[in-house]
Amino acid sequence: MDLDGVAKAFVDHYYTTFDTNRATLVGLYKEDSMLSFEGDKYKGAANITAKLTSLPFASCKHQITTVDCQPSGPAGGMLVFVSGALQVAEGEHPLKFSQMFHLMPAGPGNFYVQNDMFRLNYG
Amino acid sequence: MDLDGVAKAFVDHYYTTFDTNRATLVGLYKEDSMLSFEGDKYKGAANITAKLTSLPFASCKHQITTVDCQPSGPAGGMLVFVSGALQVAEGEHPLKFSQMFHLMPAGPGNFYVQNDMFRLNYG
Repeated sequence: MDLDGVAKAFVDHYYTTFDTNRATLVGLYKEDSMLSFEGDKYKGAANITAKLTSLPFASCKHQITTVDCQPSGPAGGMLVFVSGALQVAEGEHPLKFSQMFHLMPAGPGNFYVQNDMFRLNYG
Repeated sequence: MDLDGVAKAFVDHYYTTFDTNRATLVGLYKEDSMLSFEGDKYKGAANITAKLTSLPFASCKHQITTVDCQPSGPAGGMLVFVSGALQVAEGEHPLKFSQMFHLMPAGPGNFYVQNDMFRLNYG
């Protein structure tokens, strides 16, 4: 498996979905999925999606700077580590962020997000 | 197990060791450990330690801003996600960084670093 290719495809898909229709991110999470968002913790696809869709901006745009990935172990998972910038309103200064995902297999060629940790990197 | 407590203890130990005697970090890695450092990949405790000890600064000081952690799955691992600043010489401007570790059990109460990904967050 080309891990770097899978990681890049996931990252493209995740942030494009986030920026166009956040509610549909629910399909990437499962009941055992965990999100840490600026230190607050959420568990399960429904709670995670509720948090993401309640963020106080109507539209946003992620720009990705770096994507790193490594296999996470014998269970076939992969770790994806992202840095980038997030613009939450036209004309606003982009906010730098870092995010890591632990993707686990969900059937042939498919992954779901088991772990998700997000932090803004304040200047 | 108090995951947050273990994560904080690991982070304190890791960066104190990094800032005082980088070569002894070798004991935290094993042969299957992986490091991605600014996009370059290293595998195994010896190669990882060779990279860390060859970084072009004699002394450094990490300041930690945030530590997040989550369990990584049934194998008993944990994901630790760190942000902070790194000062590589007296009087220099600190560099912001993000780093993630995947810790796996290595005997009762012990963990080793299976995955390590480091990125500077350029302003």
